[in-house]
Amino acid sequence: MAKTKMVLAYSGGLDTSAIIPWLIDNYDAEVICFCADLGDAPDEKEIEEKAYKLGAKHFTFKDYKDKFVQDFVYPLARAGAIYQEDYLLGTAIARPLIGEGLAEAVQEHGATHVVHGATGKGNDQVRFERAIAYLLPETEILAPWKVWDMKGRTDLQKYLAAKGHDVSLVEKTYSVDENLLHRSCEGGILEDITQPYPEEEVLTPASVARDASEKITLEFIDGYLYSINSHQYSPYESLNFLNELGRKYAIGTVDLVEERTNGIKSRGIYETPGGTILFDAIKQLKSICFDRKLLSISKLNALQYAELVYDGLWHSQARRSLDGFFNEASLVLTGTIEYEVSYKQLKLRQRKSQYSLYDQQLVSFDEDEFDLHHASHGFCRTLCLTSVQQGKQAKKLK
Amino acid sequence: MAKTKMVLAYSGGLDTSAIIPWLIDNYDAEVICFCADLGDAPDEKEIEEKAYKLGAKHFTFKDYKDKFVQDFVYPLARAGAIYQEDYLLGTAIARPLIGEGLAEAVQEHGATHVVHGATGKGNDQVRFERAIAYLLPETEILAPWKVWDMKGRTDLQKYLAAKGHDVSLVEKTYSVDENLLHRSCEGGILEDITQPYPEEEVLTPASVARDASEKITLEFIDGYLYSINSHQYSPYESLNFLNELGRKYAIGTVDLVEERTNGIKSRGIYETPGGTILFDAIKQLKSICFDRKLLSISKLNALQYAELVYDGLWHSQARRSLDGFFNEASLVLTGTIEYEVSYKQLKLRQRKSQYSLYDQQLVSFDEDEFDLHHASHGFCRTLCLTSVQQGKQAKKLK
Amino acid sequence: MAKTKMVLAYSGGLDTSAIIPWLIDNYDAEVICFCADLGDAPDEKEIEEKAYKLGAKHFTFKDYKDKFVQDFVYPLARAGAIYQEDYLLGTAIARPLIGEGLAEAVQEHGATHVVHGATGKGNDQVRFERAIAYLLPETEILAPWKVWDMKGRTDLQKYLAAKGHDVSLVEKTYSVDENLLHRSCEGGILEDITQPYPEEEVLTPASVARDASEKITLEFIDGYLYSINSHQYSPYESLNFLNELGRKYAIGTVDLVEERTNGIKSRGIYETPGGTILFDAIKQLKSICFDRKLLSISKLNALQYAELVYDGLWHSQARRSLDGFFNEASLVLTGTIEYEVSYKQLKLRQRKSQYSLYDQQLVSFDEDEFDLHHASHGFCRTLCLTSVQQGKQAKKLK
Amino acid sequence: MAKTKMVLAYSGGLDTSAIIPWLIDNYDAEVICFCADLGDAPDEKEIEEKAYKLGAKHFTFKDYKDKFVQDFVYPLARAGAIYQEDYLLGTAIARPLIGEGLAEAVQEHGATHVVHGATGKGNDQVRFERAIAYLLPETEILAPWKVWDMKGRTDLQKYLAAKGHDVSLVEKTYSVDENLLHRSCEGGILEDITQPYPEEEVLTPASVARDASEKITLEFIDGYLYSINSHQYSPYESLNFLNELGRKYAIGTVDLVEERTNGIKSRGIYETPGGTILFDAIKQLKSICFDRKLLSISKLNALQYAELVYDGLWHSQARRSLDGFFNEASLVLTGTIEYEVSYKQLKLRQRKSQYSLYDQQLVSFDEDEFDLHHASHGFCRTLCLTSVQQGKQAKKLK
Repeated sequence: MAKTKMVLAYSGGLDTSAIIPWLIDNYDAEVICFCADLGDAPDEKEIEEKAYKLGAKHFTFKDYKDKFVQDFVYPLARAGAIYQEDYLLGTAIARPLIGEGLAEAVQEHGATHVVHGATGKGNDQVRFERAIAYLLPETEILAPWKVWDMKGRTDLQKYLAAKGHDVSLVEKTYSVDENLLHRSCEGGILEDITQPYPEEEVLTPASVARDASEKITLEFIDGYLYSINSHQYSPYESLNFLNELGRKYAIGTVDLVEERTNGIKSRGIYETPGGTILFDAIKQLKSICFDRKLLSISKLNALQYAELVYDGLWHSQARRSLDGFFNEASLVLTGTIEYEVSYKQLKLRQRKSQYSLYDQQLVSFDEDEFDLHHASHGFCRTLCLTSVQQGKQAKKLK
Repeated sequence: MAKTKMVLAYSGGLDTSAIIPWLIDNYDAEVICFCADLGDAPDEKEIEEKAYKLGAKHFTFKDYKDKFVQDFVYPLARAGAIYQEDYLLGTAIARPLIGEGLAEAVQEHGATHVVHGATGKGNDQVRFERAIAYLLPETEILAPWKVWDMKGRTDLQKYLAAKGHDVSLVEKTYSVDENLLHRSCEGGILEDITQPYPEEEVLTPASVARDASEKITLEFIDGYLYSINSHQYSPYESLNFLNELGRKYAIGTVDLVEERTNGIKSRGIYETPGGTILFDAIKQLKSICFDRKLLSISKLNALQYAELVYDGLWHSQARRSLDGFFNEASLVLTGTIEYEVSYKQLKLRQRKSQYSLYDQQLVSFDEDEFDLHHASHGFCRTLCLTSVQQGKQAKKLK
Repeated sequence: MAKTKMVLAYSGGLDTSAIIPWLIDNYDAEVICFCADLGDAPDEKEIEEKAYKLGAKHFTFKDYKDKFVQDFVYPLARAGAIYQEDYLLGTAIARPLIGEGLAEAVQEHGATHVVHGATGKGNDQVRFERAIAYLLPETEILAPWKVWDMKGRTDLQKYLAAKGHDVSLVEKTYSVDENLLHRSCEGGILEDITQPYPEEEVLTPASVARDASEKITLEFIDGYLYSINSHQYSPYESLNFLNELGRKYAIGTVDLVEERTNGIKSRGIYETPGGTILFDAIKQLKSICFDRKLLSISKLNALQYAELVYDGLWHSQARRSLDGFFNEASLVLTGTIEYEVSYKQLKLRQRKSQYSLYDQQLVSFDEDEFDLHHASHGFCRTLCLTSVQQGKQAKKLK
Repeated sequence: MAKTKMVLAYSGGLDTSAIIPWLIDNYDAEVICFCADLGDAPDEKEIEEKAYKLGAKHFTFKDYKDKFVQDFVYPLARAGAIYQEDYLLGTAIARPLIGEGLAEAVQEHGATHVVHGATGKGNDQVRFERAIAYLLPETEILAPWKVWDMKGRTDLQKYLAAKGHDVSLVEKTYSVDENLLHRSCEGGILEDITQPYPEEEVLTPASVARDASEKITLEFIDGYLYSINSHQYSPYESLNFLNELGRKYAIGTVDLVEERTNGIKSRGIYETPGGTILFDAIKQLKSICFDRKLLSISKLNALQYAELVYDGLWHSQARRSLDGFFNEASLVLTGTIEYEVSYKQLKLRQRKSQYSLYDQQLVSFDEDEFDLHHASHGFCRTLCLTSVQQGKQAKKLK
């Protein structure tokens, strides 16, 4: 009888490594490992070897670095989607792309199951499972953490050791997720929110320039980053460039308590150096190219966008509709933002756009071609109508 | 015949100084000068003397520093009301209080007019006039800048000189507004948004500590700041304390292009050192005490709150209703936020509240008293229902 | 050993009747039946007798009719909370009150479990369980439909018959929920949305007056219904009065496909005769007493309110905060709305409020005391500023 | 010297008729009359003759009936944009199209001014002027009602009579605006909101069928009406068909107090027979084809859309962006809605769409292929997490 074919979202880490033999043991499965590079630079050879050693039948590796930035990060940044004030959605935005890769592998191999290593407490379970449910409604989803009796890293290590696998016992005091957009740390010692997080231990080591500064010019077309310092890069290279710059100046670190989809409050330390620059530059461009109403409506839609992505609803008609909104709105987001970047600071040097609504002549106190000083009499008088009525109302209320 | 009594919002500056004789000349008015201290520390004696010298009949001075912080800044901060992403509404929130003072003076003196020195291009005209229209619908409002033929500072200086007044010719290259919450600069050389603003010239001189840091503990009750480092201060002293701290570490400077109520885009350089700390601390408290739905709804209401205040609608049933919302919501905003403040950085040291929804045991990977790992199977399965349906829909769409 | 005490939300219907012996069989439970009257006029004696016959140890009956209208329906109507355009939340708003009754019974009897008869496909499970989780976090919740193997009404009937209970075999082709606010029908034959629902069979029998009409005057204080035709009634009597009137004129029937909390689309036929009149009257009062901004913000908050109630989050800080908003806003909702009610029509006869912002003199074409015709020149000119800028922007776009 | 060329939005009514000679008298203008048919069936010949008789130099007539429905009414209906709960924006949506016609005439004739007959108290001034400002920023706008001294209809009649023009003295007790989407009455006797409006006098005379009914099937593609009863019509014919049907059954009459852009509350009696059917059918289609999140977000955007259109901001990047949203969302709005229309009632007979998310098998109580009864245990348990935390919070609050 043919074995059950299962596609596993494989990272090479402890959890998904233990899953390989466990699937074979418990489901007599033929395991297809799928691994994607979204900028965390996994070592393809090493991971492949490991997967096969653990019993995988197939191994598929995809370089999604450019795709990730172009089709996922850029639309997100253009929308200005930020979850609960501060989270730039670095992990959340990566999951639907991995979901697409998994779905492809399923179809290629004629598999019946998708297996992921996310736990039953976090957000990623929701994101992986919703992506798969959307893309391949018939495929079964298996989340070993919801099924097996193992309770933590130690159990996993014991299980692997018992199977004869060599497990390097890296003691981790928190868990890390990393890709081109961000690096997040959570869990373990970070769970005590009455304590500051240990910077030296948690943050990416970087030689921070505390007393230097440098200029950077970002050119956008239709809300998409087109060039940096007049040089065009691939999407991946662009974000990488911004990441290096941002890291050098300690830009974009956040210590956030957020509420997960399932209602659990958790704390994350997020580093989003390049993303923070990117999001800010688009915000600056909007400030000159979007009128007040469009700014307000965009903000409402950005809040919705963020919740959709956070909750694993990237694959939805709602997200696509919001992109319809931002596609159209962003037609005026062509222009240039220039910063002087220094320690923890993005100082604006220049905002410029052919579609700018900023009109220096109009705003200038001395110029009044439009005869605003006089028009404003009628303007204010009319605006006061409702205040007069409300004032009368309020007097009766007392 | 009795003279027309006019209450003038008097600051001692060039514009409102020129208005005194101009009102006498053109309306044969009895001018009552009203001046309030909202933290910009005007010199009462000097201004009073100046007003009388220019022909004022009465001079009223009010110390609104505590009132300003307690009744205006704190509710604003509690709501987290920020206009167009970055403006903490420092000027906007001051105007309705000045409006209240003007209205009181009108009633005290039996005046028929309120006069203000705001121009026909800015926002303050709207805020002053709406406040007066609401509080005293019968009172006439006179805005000389919308009526006279003078075109700028030079004209005003000439006019005063011609009247025999001694005018010190301070050359200003931009205009400044200052109070306890913020200091803003706009106009003049700042209007060229293709140029960075000259920091040394524009920003408040301060001896910035680039390499030091210090801890600060903010205690809140019902969303109101109650103590700093366990010491209770008056509202004024509190914000002053935070201002000094913030300034020392270069916290809270923004270079913003915003859109005014009248549709004109303008650029402001805002320094809000203490306000930035205050707003951030409340945001942190919300992150642990507000659940996800309350966070979302608060955000929607904060956006509305900001637009109301910006547009001069502090005095409105809508703003009061939003305060009804935040009054109730803030009953859980009792707790402590501790920072380590250093150059351009507010590093969280501690978040703590008796009403915190953060539950370290619940979030911990190793604990699962609630049996979430298993419950989450049904949770995700159910969440996937809509994704399955939408996935089927999407397939038909192609 | 003491038996497990379980409080059952008991309605006297087939489902909850079968649950009594099932709890005894499977948990050796001491069953406390809780039943509340929210206006569906259950026969207390009959239900009590039935419960005891089926093995219940205790029976508690509460008359919540006035409480339901005063503390639940009125705030809902005042907020104008409507789910997905058309559902006045008749069932959803009843559940948290029943939850409160269940929690009280638990405490009174020292019980450890709450048991409800809602299925795993609907919304009521969420509402019951969230209410209990909020009120009594330690209490366990048991939902037999999620546990037992019985699959439908027939299984229940067989089970009861096997136990020796006399089961009247009422054949139901859909299920009904009824209280003072509404009567809903769903399931069974109604699930085919390509077919109209059979009106004669589904709708409450009523002698509809197709050619008559009558006047009704509703007086409100602070957004709460105070009198009908100048007569004060208890909350229950008020809504009952409106229900009878509404039913007579076929007011308030809706055929709706809604999406449940769990993502399932379902169809309901809702009759909300009195509620429809009540909601409409408050809407009319708002139209004259709320200014435009307050109307917009109220609408946003009403949408949030509706989702909270629908999703079983009545017991939440978010709902209470929204009531803080509507409490404050509704201080101006004092006044009178008069209708002529006829077949499917609420014709307005009069809107009146001491807090009305409607000013007949101001709106009148012939009157122009405020000199609006001239002021509007400056008003429009100023409003056009953004259109001019955007028009120039658009020309460059092409 | 060349005369000033002025394009007048001419309707043939008293106001715009008086404007023709007044422009000639006061500006020595060459008047170009522009008149468009948006479904109110103006008599082109009669109006043209009248215009020339009054002194017009040119007369341009445009049949915009199909364009109006296709490019303005349909997008509006698809968005479900309704202002202040009840106004389907019949007048507001017509103005930007007339603005486009005026702009075209200006360019064709090389005119320098656009002249309109809207008063300084209403909304249309804003809509006309913003449309022109956007389309032709250089063109001057002249609104005689804001300039001349005439105070009402009588003055206009006297003025025309004095000029030797024959004025038929139609006594109007309120004013009317009509087009394919709606007919509105306001002003005059309708301004007393303590009185019901006189139906016989105000409403369009129609032979209403009180005891009949008929079926109608509306087929939509991408949210646009495609056929009625399987028959394809031109956009104009379609809406006309629905209007006749709606009028026959007294569908879509509203008595509304709304707040104008300038803050004045006014009352309108709106008849929108066909539009009401159209809007409802799209709403029904959304209820089966939009998931819950998309419904919520669409609603938020519809509220914004309505305010934009009401305030004369059809021509804006914001409205276009919202259409971007609805264009994308509406790709699933293909399907059929069938009603039985009777007196004041649209009874649904059928909802059907290839993209429907409604799944009869899933919702059915008896079917449980998805094993929801068991999955829902984990679903509810997880949803209760936040309720448990909030319940604990609330207990401490007391």
